[in-house]
Amino acid sequence: MSKRAFNFCAGPAALPTAVLERAQAEMLDWQGKGLSVMEMSHRSDEYVAIAERAEQDLRDLLAIPSNYKVLFLQGGASQQFAEIPLNLLPEDGVADYIDTGIWSKKAIEEAQRFGNVNVAASAKAYDYFAIPGQNDWQLSKKAAYLHYASNETIGGLQFDWVPDVGETPLVVDMSSDILSRPIDVSQYGLIYAGAQKNIGPSGLVVAIVREDLLGRARSSCPTMLNYKVAADNGSMYNTPATYSWYLSGLVFEWLKEQGGVEAIAKVNRTKKDLLYKAIDASDFYSNPITHNARSWMNVPFRLADDKLDKPFLAGAEARGLLNLKGHRSVGGMRASIYNAVGLDAVEALVAYMAEFEKEHA
Amino acid sequence: MSKRAFNFCAGPAALPTAVLERAQAEMLDWQGKGLSVMEMSHRSDEYVAIAERAEQDLRDLLAIPSNYKVLFLQGGASQQFAEIPLNLLPEDGVADYIDTGIWSKKAIEEAQRFGNVNVAASAKAYDYFAIPGQNDWQLSKKAAYLHYASNETIGGLQFDWVPDVGETPLVVDMSSDILSRPIDVSQYGLIYAGAQKNIGPSGLVVAIVREDLLGRARSSCPTMLNYKVAADNGSMYNTPATYSWYLSGLVFEWLKEQGGVEAIAKVNRTKKDLLYKAIDASDFYSNPITHNARSWMNVPFRLADDKLDKPFLAGAEARGLLNLKGHRSVGGMRASIYNAVGLDAVEALVAYMAEFEKEHA
Repeated sequence: MSKRAFNFCAGPAALPTAVLERAQAEMLDWQGKGLSVMEMSHRSDEYVAIAERAEQDLRDLLAIPSNYKVLFLQGGASQQFAEIPLNLLPEDGVADYIDTGIWSKKAIEEAQRFGNVNVAASAKAYDYFAIPGQNDWQLSKKAAYLHYASNETIGGLQFDWVPDVGETPLVVDMSSDILSRPIDVSQYGLIYAGAQKNIGPSGLVVAIVREDLLGRARSSCPTMLNYKVAADNGSMYNTPATYSWYLSGLVFEWLKEQGGVEAIAKVNRTKKDLLYKAIDASDFYSNPITHNARSWMNVPFRLADDKLDKPFLAGAEARGLLNLKGHRSVGGMRASIYNAVGLDAVEALVAYMAEFEKEHA
Repeated sequence: MSKRAFNFCAGPAALPTAVLERAQAEMLDWQGKGLSVMEMSHRSDEYVAIAERAEQDLRDLLAIPSNYKVLFLQGGASQQFAEIPLNLLPEDGVADYIDTGIWSKKAIEEAQRFGNVNVAASAKAYDYFAIPGQNDWQLSKKAAYLHYASNETIGGLQFDWVPDVGETPLVVDMSSDILSRPIDVSQYGLIYAGAQKNIGPSGLVVAIVREDLLGRARSSCPTMLNYKVAADNGSMYNTPATYSWYLSGLVFEWLKEQGGVEAIAKVNRTKKDLLYKAIDASDFYSNPITHNARSWMNVPFRLADDKLDKPFLAGAEARGLLNLKGHRSVGGMRASIYNAVGLDAVEALVAYMAEFEKEHA
């Protein structure tokens, strides 16, 4: 038996042990066929069945309506930052963007290279500790879409509401909170997510696109970046990232076995409540985010004295609590507690935090 | 022990059993760290060491000069078909392309969307059974680059020579023959290869770029498609396909253990000689490609009567000889005999072919 650590990495992040065990068992010989999934033609009956099963499980988990296509793409969310305007923003149009932190700013900067961007609201006014309410947004009269990031992985800032912008399609970067709690897909025009947090290995991006938004790509859009081309070819215009797609399918199966998104949301709520409670109950630890915008998935926190950061991290690692160091732009600590990070991991972290505080406060 | 079949798939293709065994052993717990490689931050010391080791091993295997960058990208060769003109073809420039089959034609069609393309030569004149000699090429006076595919995976047509176009940078799609035999990297401006034949799993592309070709991208080039951005960030502008990169590194290590590219080239020569000899010695099997353009990696062949295709494939599968069906555009059979397909696999195939011929001729 391997000893598995508690892994709080922001991404690539922990995967369910059961998923890795199954991948391990099937590595050399998938279901007696004598070859690995990564050695299969993407056009083979066996692989197509794996790919379709993964898509169907994701559709079941999120209750994706039939007028949405599910795409399995590559290049990470960063490539989507260009694909979105190339597919959805007419050259003479304007797109609204909400700035809530580092990732939404990156999306804004890339979109500005391709057209008119209106930053309708920015959390900068609140030092990125709160999300501006919709009453304060300066929306365009006729935006091609509104883009926002539902969860900022670095800042630890998450929307607990869905913007209401009428007929304007909502485009949302859900990289770090997709599948963590229920959503109503029909509220969105385009949902996209890099896989490496709640879905699977890095190198895969899942996009869920409302069909009426397909076919609007600019003539200058590279074929591989055109959503309609991907949709028309079942994400197999060329060879997709077959093994990552398969692993994502195993994660979807695992999530169904856990009871689906509603069940995992309950666990996620318990986890984040436990951790924020521990932070708030102490003068030794702190998290600056306003309560209704605190992320369920990424919990940054500081120690009262940052000279204690190093011993805190060393002690954590000695206990098998890995990757708690905060992003360099924020400092301090960050615990990413995605679906595959169990309640036992958060309990171990909270116990260690109490112990460390007792010793050093 | 798993029973491993002989897998002649054109791609995603067979991987060395030893590589899969190592990946299997390390799946849940890499070197006692308590987590899988696919759960590691790409910025962690452990993962950076894995990534750098893979790059160095590839540099050793191909003796890549220090003025070349090695990039680990995504999107397959098809995304490169757009990236190449976006990075290397000025809007008022012209690029020369050689058409030798389906893949080089796809590269041409995509490039035409971004600028002036001169198809300097086409194998169409020979029904794609031979490669036009360089004396017959109609080169542009001042091409930004010359593009060709060193091996056509579907047609089974391979250059056994390197074009000499003076100062014009050579851009080559080596997806299906990289690492199969020695090359002189310094003859090229840009070498690129989808990983899923001789490198690793699909979803990864390796590009080897001469440094003076960096920094020429058009302003309309998406950031993620800009070679200079990838080079300046060690292929980590955003999260790369970490697990595929790691697996590719295991393949590079394995290839070094086999004695490197020169040693594997000897095996590859023996394999292809054995298979073509079996085809040529018989009136029952045929391959139409002119001898000096026959691919070492992809060997298409036909049976005298295509009514026998089905029984041939069924008999092959019963013997654990998988994925011999030819591409739908060519018909017949195709045996892809990449590095990871051993001499024993080709011997088993040739034995089966003789047996089948005896029964059905």
